Formats: sequence, structure tokens, C-alpha cells
Amino acid sequence: MTQLIKVAVTGASGRMGREVVKLVLEDEQLELVAAVAPTAGPVDAGTLVGLGPCGITVSPDLESALRESNADVLVDFTVPHAAYNNTRTAIEYGVRPIIGTTGFTPEQIEELNGQCKSRGIGGLIAPNFSIGAILMMKFAAEASKYLPHVEIIEYHGDQKLDAPSGTAVKTAELISEVREELRQGNPQEKETIEGSRGGYYDGFRIHSVRLPGVFAQQEVIFGGFGQTLKIRHDSYDRAGYMPGVSVAVKKVMTYTGLIYGFEHIMD
Amino acid sequence: MTQLIKVAVTGASGRMGREVVKLVLEDEQLELVAAVAPTAGPVDAGTLVGLGPCGITVSPDLESALRESNADVLVDFTVPHAAYNNTRTAIEYGVRPIIGTTGFTPEQIEELNGQCKSRGIGGLIAPNFSIGAILMMKFAAEASKYLPHVEIIEYHGDQKLDAPSGTAVKTAELISEVREELRQGNPQEKETIEGSRGGYYDGFRIHSVRLPGVFAQQEVIFGGFGQTLKIRHDSYDRAGYMPGVSVAVKKVMTYTGLIYGFEHIMD
Amino acid sequence: MTQLIKVAVTGASGRMGREVVKLVLEDEQLELVAAVAPTAGPVDAGTLVGLGPCGITVSPDLESALRESNADVLVDFTVPHAAYNNTRTAIEYGVRPIIGTTGFTPEQIEELNGQCKSRGIGGLIAPNFSIGAILMMKFAAEASKYLPHVEIIEYHGDQKLDAPSGTAVKTAELISEVREELRQGNPQEKETIEGSRGGYYDGFRIHSVRLPGVFAQQEVIFGGFGQTLKIRHDSYDRAGYMPGVSVAVKKVMTYTGLIYGFEHIMD
Amino acid sequence: MTQLIKVAVTGASGRMGREVVKLVLEDEQLELVAAVAPTAGPVDAGTLVGLGPCGITVSPDLESALRESNADVLVDFTVPHAAYNNTRTAIEYGVRPIIGTTGFTPEQIEELNGQCKSRGIGGLIAPNFSIGAILMMKFAAEASKYLPHVEIIEYHGDQKLDAPSGTAVKTAELISEVREELRQGNPQEKETIEGSRGGYYDGFRIHSVRLPGVFAQQEVIFGGFGQTLKIRHDSYDRAGYMPGVSVAVKKVMTYTGLIYGFEHIMD
Repeated sequence: MTQLIKVAVTGASGRMGREVVKLVLEDEQLELVAAVAPTAGPVDAGTLVGLGPCGITVSPDLESALRESNADVLVDFTVPHAAYNNTRTAIEYGVRPIIGTTGFTPEQIEELNGQCKSRGIGGLIAPNFSIGAILMMKFAAEASKYLPHVEIIEYHGDQKLDAPSGTAVKTAELISEVREELRQGNPQEKETIEGSRGGYYDGFRIHSVRLPGVFAQQEVIFGGFGQTLKIRHDSYDRAGYMPGVSVAVKKVMTYTGLIYGFEHIMD
Repeated sequence: MTQLIKVAVTGASGRMGREVVKLVLEDEQLELVAAVAPTAGPVDAGTLVGLGPCGITVSPDLESALRESNADVLVDFTVPHAAYNNTRTAIEYGVRPIIGTTGFTPEQIEELNGQCKSRGIGGLIAPNFSIGAILMMKFAAEASKYLPHVEIIEYHGDQKLDAPSGTAVKTAELISEVREELRQGNPQEKETIEGSRGGYYDGFRIHSVRLPGVFAQQEVIFGGFGQTLKIRHDSYDRAGYMPGVSVAVKKVMTYTGLIYGFEHIMD
Repeated sequence: MTQLIKVAVTGASGRMGREVVKLVLEDEQLELVAAVAPTAGPVDAGTLVGLGPCGITVSPDLESALRESNADVLVDFTVPHAAYNNTRTAIEYGVRPIIGTTGFTPEQIEELNGQCKSRGIGGLIAPNFSIGAILMMKFAAEASKYLPHVEIIEYHGDQKLDAPSGTAVKTAELISEVREELRQGNPQEKETIEGSRGGYYDGFRIHSVRLPGVFAQQEVIFGGFGQTLKIRHDSYDRAGYMPGVSVAVKKVMTYTGLIYGFEHIMD
Repeated sequence: MTQLIKVAVTGASGRMGREVVKLVLEDEQLELVAAVAPTAGPVDAGTLVGLGPCGITVSPDLESALRESNADVLVDFTVPHAAYNNTRTAIEYGVRPIIGTTGFTPEQIEELNGQCKSRGIGGLIAPNFSIGAILMMKFAAEASKYLPHVEIIEYHGDQKLDAPSGTAVKTAELISEVREELRQGNPQEKETIEGSRGGYYDGFRIHSVRLPGVFAQQEVIFGGFGQTLKIRHDSYDRAGYMPGVSVAVKKVMTYTGLIYGFEHIMD
């Protein structure tokens, strides 16, 4: 019989944390052993997320939760500052951290990697747990080796503050690393409406569309010789992260050291 | 028995003129009676376009061609200056002009309209004969009344000089005429890469993609309340104009005066 | 000062009813005057839908709710049998019914239309309140007059029971009414995998895709002469109905008689 | 200085052969040394394809052309029977065959592979030289490991005889080899219009759209957990094969033995 993986969840009352609690409660290979949320009060974690009671009471403090729970893995989708401390605490207790937060410095990652190795456990920090988005980025980079003419169009809700999106910039970086040097377009090109050709990145263009009714979408288009190749990812809600979290929880049991980036735990 | 419509074609050796000659030769309701091309020499018009001989010899001069041919309609896809003179000549001979050239001034159009009316004949000047593109623009304007959040993305070959395309600007104008006043997007929005949000037009955005392997495509996207509506036209070659030319040749026989814009002869 | 429109909502504790209650509470031109839900108990309607208390207590009975509330309009997204009775009750009280339920017989619609006229009020029954979907159907029918070669592809969640979707069939009907007689495709066409060419409807084809992660999408594609025209509607959740409900509530105040189909109240 | 690769072309007056002759004449790393076309007569190969004269006269016979030309590579886009004989002839003369024809038996491929190895030269037989299409198939197979819910939609011209297309079937096979066993859709699913759910292949569905104005397009859609991933290839004309031919001519110089399938010479 396979042993269940014991999971602790921080930020359990937050939007993503609640999804993680649900995921753990519904996955037959996982067991919820702790749920931490500083201000939620001592409610049942199952009740908190709209499922029936599960017998685990939400705790305000990570350290005491880990001391009592014997967790294998901690899943944390909180904010950068909290996440760093939570990660350190988890490693001290020998609990593998899976962190869905950006904002770690390279030095912090290096330090946490060293701590994981000392404890002989794995860990994962990833800004993006969406398998579809990660495949899109991977395929886009690969295609750019053969079809170097490329543009990126990303779509988000109309209240998003920054353009282009983090995913678009990350995709552009991955393409730039492997694509041949190429300044696309007609050198004499003129914009009669400024900005219509989009944002310039290392020879190609990025376009950011902002419309209500859109959650998060991106299309990478390659053109050449009577053909186009398009790789598109449409995301409708944050639940799209959960299959990735599920893969990560199982995978983190199998290696030692801290990995940065979900793509590096895919085969 | 229906009478055939007698068609003369100017610029018969040009890219578009050749397509028109083919169209006329292959349409059972049309009869080619004259083909004009200043420098092609006295070849058979059918042979010129890669079909068998048709008995009409290419003529270097429009006036003599019209004098001898008793044409009903002249189709002209030449350049602005030539087109203006050809249109005047046609009307003088009582031949209905169908002109696929931009660059006419409002005064010229007014004047030619008066001449058509005096002669009791119809005429058409249209920058765009693509039925699909015209439907796209019409639907986009109509949708913007109900779903005012809109962006335009247009795609052309990577050697195109100007951005955005004429069709995109025309579409934006048609939308602006009927859409409620609305400045889309977050007022605090910031571009970390300049231009990524596209070109600004009356409260919404236009994005121009340039890639090899693309001929001419445009998508108009409307967003709102958990839904998006997209209207997209993909054009693969100039042959896309021909169904519109065919419709125009038949329609121009049925009205008096010069109409500007293909959309105005659609029901 | 404009007078607020007084709205009653039936099925207020149901999935759609809750959305309607929210819509009414958040629209400055509307006032919630009654919320009916047989089994919800006497809770505040605002609290029921996750907003703050609004001062309207949910009532178990439509008739007493209407007697006391002086509503202008009743919005009903319940089930066919209940909807019919609710509609009759509303009309008796001089309250304009807006009904988002299918299953009325032509005789029932005729009868309710007569009753609306007798009372001098308007009414609306519509199976689909999605403005985007209705525009898609309208544009598709119009395009099929000019570009008669068409196929429909619809996408729904993988647990949907029936194929094609009601919207796809409705679109096909609207196209068939106006499109020229045309049996598309090669007469010698052969399927090496049965069904790959999709479902046959009056000369053209319908394809039903079923995948998890999709809510409701449809694309109507027209092809001809080096071009394609695509009209696509993507719907992500039921909230997509609410803008249509909002339009309907205001519009129903302006006419007399019962209209069937949201498209008939659009300009 | 890099040595030019000497290229012979069979079927030089055919649709694809002409494209190959053009490609070779315009690529600075390649040199046209022979062009074979049984019935074209002794014309200049450059003139034949609409470029200026190139000094190579079209020959009616492959064997004499190879004897005189000292070619490194033969490119052959003829018909199966001719292609087999041409391949054998090429190998006898130590000329590397690049064959864009289907219809070889496994035994023939094995035999030709042996002959290539004996002569110490490379060779390539590939039904598809479109880099974009090959990337689409490769990415589709890879994505199906992570997102096993998949459907294929392919689009071709309305006069195509068979459905689904060869590319769709090939894609389905590649997916089936790596995807987990999964019968998609609701087991109680019912078609109210027969065939609307498409063709069944190993648990998933293939849809074939046929419309005028389409050359060859395919979209593979993956769905799951609030997201979809789409990989789409649009092909507008046969010129789309040429970049692949160009890659193949250079690559075939670097290995020994006959490779079947363009994907196997990609990195």
C-alpha cells in the first residue's frame, strides 16, 4: 500500500490557499495534516473551503502546526516576505517547501537550496504552476529555433496594471536565449499611430490586450514561408494552477535540493 | 434569356487586372469586350492571363477601346492618377466605372457623381472589394454598440511599411462613430515595455503584427462580463477581391450615381 | 430625475437568481423590491448573495411578494413549470415578466402575449440572454448570404450530454433560413474515420468538441475565394447573461406585448 | 570558404520541382547542377521557373544527368513509382536522395537504407517537409502526456476527398503512443445529429472541416482544470515545404544511412 503524503498549507484562508486545501482533501494520495491562517480563527479547514468538516482545525501559527503535524510537504501561496520565513521554518522542521510566490532574490534561493541539501530534502519555488502555460513557453522557445520570426500577444483583464504580463516577458526571455539574432520587420517601418507595433524585445514584438471578460491568455505566433504556427494558452481561473501543485507535491518527495521553476520538475 | 454584361478592363496586364480579366472570362453572365494595357503589346487577353485565346486583343488606349467595344462597365484597378482620368473617360462614353483605387479627393468624387447622374448611369469607387473584410467591419461596428470594450489586432506580412493597416484604421473609425464614449483600461496602467499596449485610438487600442507567411488578417475582439466576441477575417491572396468585383459589376447596372464604398451596395 | 425601475426576482437562491439579485442591487437605475425563494427562509436578500443587507427579506411566495411590492418587472430564471405559473401571476399583477427559461409551447406564448396586451404591459421570454451569443448568431446568418460555405464548431465541457449544443442548432436554423441552397463539400468525399466530417445539417456541417476546462464557446467559419471569416463567442460563466438581463429590464418598460427571443429587443 | 552543395532536381517542371529549382538557385550555399524533366525539352532550368537563365539545361534522363553533374544531393518530389527508381539510381551514383513522396514499403526503405550505408552516404524520405506541421505534431504528442484530454480539428479545401487528413491521423497516432489510456467525454453522451462529435480515435475525437479558401490548417486542443492549450498550424501554399527542403539538403551531408521522417533530422 502506498503511503499518503502529509501536506500542510499556509495562507489557507486566501484565494489560492483555499484551492490548495480543497485539492489536498480531494486527492486520494494526499492527506491534509495542517492548515495555517493567522486570522481565520479555529475553524475546521474543510468547512472553511466549503467542503464538509475534515478534522483539521486551522492554526494561527506555522511553527506549532509543523511541530504537531509531522508534515512531509508545505504548500505556500502567500506573499514574498511571509513565504521566505515560512520556507526557512519548513526546512528547519524537515518539511519540503512548495512555494508559489515570486520575489525571492538569487541569494535567498541559493541559501535555501543549501539548507534543503543539508536536511536531505527537496523543495520547489515556482512563480507559475500552470502546466499549460509552462508547456506554451517551452514549445515557444523550441519553435523559435526553427521559425525565428515571432510575436507574442497576451490578453488579461482590463484592470491589470502592468503591461506586458510577467508570463509574456518570461516567454520572451526564453525565446531570446535560443533564437538566432534577428531584427524583424521592415527597417523603414513607420507607425502612423504610435505604439501600434507593440513593445520591442530583442528584435521582436509583444502586444498586450486588456479586456473585461478575459482572465489570462497568451498566443505566441511564428511566421514563415507560407505558414504560421501558433501556440496558445487560455486560462479561465486560478484552479488552473492546481494540477501543477498536485504534480509538485508528489515530485518533491523524490529529489534533494531546492529547484526554481516548475519546468525543471517536468520530464 | 438574360443579356450578358459587357466588361472592359484597364490595367489588364497588372496583378489585379489579370485577375479581373480571368474573372470576366469565367463568369457566364459577363462578356469581355475590351482589355487595355499600355505596354503589353497586341496580345490576346485570354492568352495574357494564362487561359486560352478569347478573341479580344489587348489595346494600348482606353478611349479607342471604349469607342469600339460598346462596354457596359469598366473595371479599373490601376493607380490613382490614371484611375481618375479613366473614370472620366468611361463616364463620357456612358460606361459605368468600377474603381478599386484609393486616393480620390471628396471634390473629385462629388464631380464624378454629378457626371454619372447626368449620364444616367451608376458607378462605384471602393478601396476594398473583399466581402469578408467588409462584413467584418460592419459586424464590428454593430457589436461595439452592445459590447463597447474592444481591441483590434491586425496581421500583415513583415515587409509592410505602415502600421496600423488601412483596414484597421477604417474599422476603428466605424466603431468610433457608433460606440459610446469610453476610455478603456486601468487609468493607472503602466507599460514596462513601451508600446506593448498598442496604438491608442479614441479610447481603445490597435495592435499591428508583422510576420512573414501572413497576407492580411484582422481580428476585432470584444470583452465583457465573462465573455468575449471575436470577428476575424483571414485573407490569403488578392483573389479574395474577385467575388466582390463580380457582385459590383452586376449591381452597378441597377442604380444611378456614383457610390463610394463597397459596403453601400450590399443589401 | 429618472425613476428607478422596481424589480422582483424569483428563484432568488438559485445560481442564476443570485446573479440577478446582485445585478439589481448594483445597477443604479434599478431597485430590488422583492426576492422570492420557497426554501431559503426569511433572510435578507443582499446577505443571501454575499453583499451587505439591503432591507429586502426573501419571501417564500410570489403572489404575496407582488401584492406588497408594487414591482415593475419580474425576472425569473427558474424551471419551465414554475416559470409558466410565475409569468401568469406577474401579468395578473401588472408586472412585466422577463423569463430566462425554455420549454414554453407556442400556445402558451400566444396566450401570455394576449394577456400582456390586455394589461398594456411588455414581457420577454428568451432562452438566451447572452448578448455576445446573440450577436454571433445574427452575424452568422447575415454572413451566410454572402459567403454561403459555412461550418459550425462548438465547444463545451466534457460532461455535457447532448451534441450539438442548442446554440449550434439555433445558429444552423438561422443560417438555413437565409442561405442559398447549397450542398457543400466534394460529392465523392469519404470518411476513413466515421463521423470525422461532423454532423450534417441542410448542406453544411456541425462539429461538437467536448473538453474539460471549457465552459461554452462557438465559432462559425465562412470560406471562399482566398479568405475565411470567423465569428466566435467564448463564454466563461453564467455572469455573461447579466448584461442582457440589464438591457431587457430597461427595454421591457418601453413596449407592449410579449416578445420571444432576446434578439428581437435589440435595435 | 565553404564548399557549395551540388544539387540535382527531378520532376523539375512539376509544381513542387519548380519550387525546388528556385530554392536551389536562390540559396547561396547551394548550386544547381542538374534538372531532370522528361517532357519539358532542352530549356534553361532558370528560365523554366521564371528566373533568369542559369546555364543548366533541363535533361530528360536522370542517369545521364547524374553521370555528368557530380551532384551531392538529389531532390525528388515525383510520384511513388518514379521516386523509387530515382532513389536507387541516385544511390548507385553516390548521390544522397531527398525524397518527398509517400508510398514506399517498409521493405523498400530497408533495402534503400542498406544501399545508402554501403555507399557511405545519407538519405531522407519524408512525406512532410513542413517544419511548422512537424513541430505541431511533436508538441501535441508532448502536451498529451500532461494534459491527456485532447481533440483535433483539421481544415482543408472543400474539394478534398478523404477525411480526416493524413496529418490528422499521423498526429493522432503520435498522441496515442504516449498518452495515458483515457476514454474522453460523458459515457451517456448522445448525438442528436449523427457525427457531430466527430471521428473516434483511441478515446478522443477528430473533426474535419472542409471549406473553400482554406489550404491546410490543423489545431490540436488540450483541455483541463480551467485552461486550454492550443497548438495550431496554418499553411497557405506548398512553398511552406521549402525551408524544410533547405534544412534537409544541408543535413543529409552529415550522416550515413537512410532516415524516414523529417522529424528525425531535427535536433
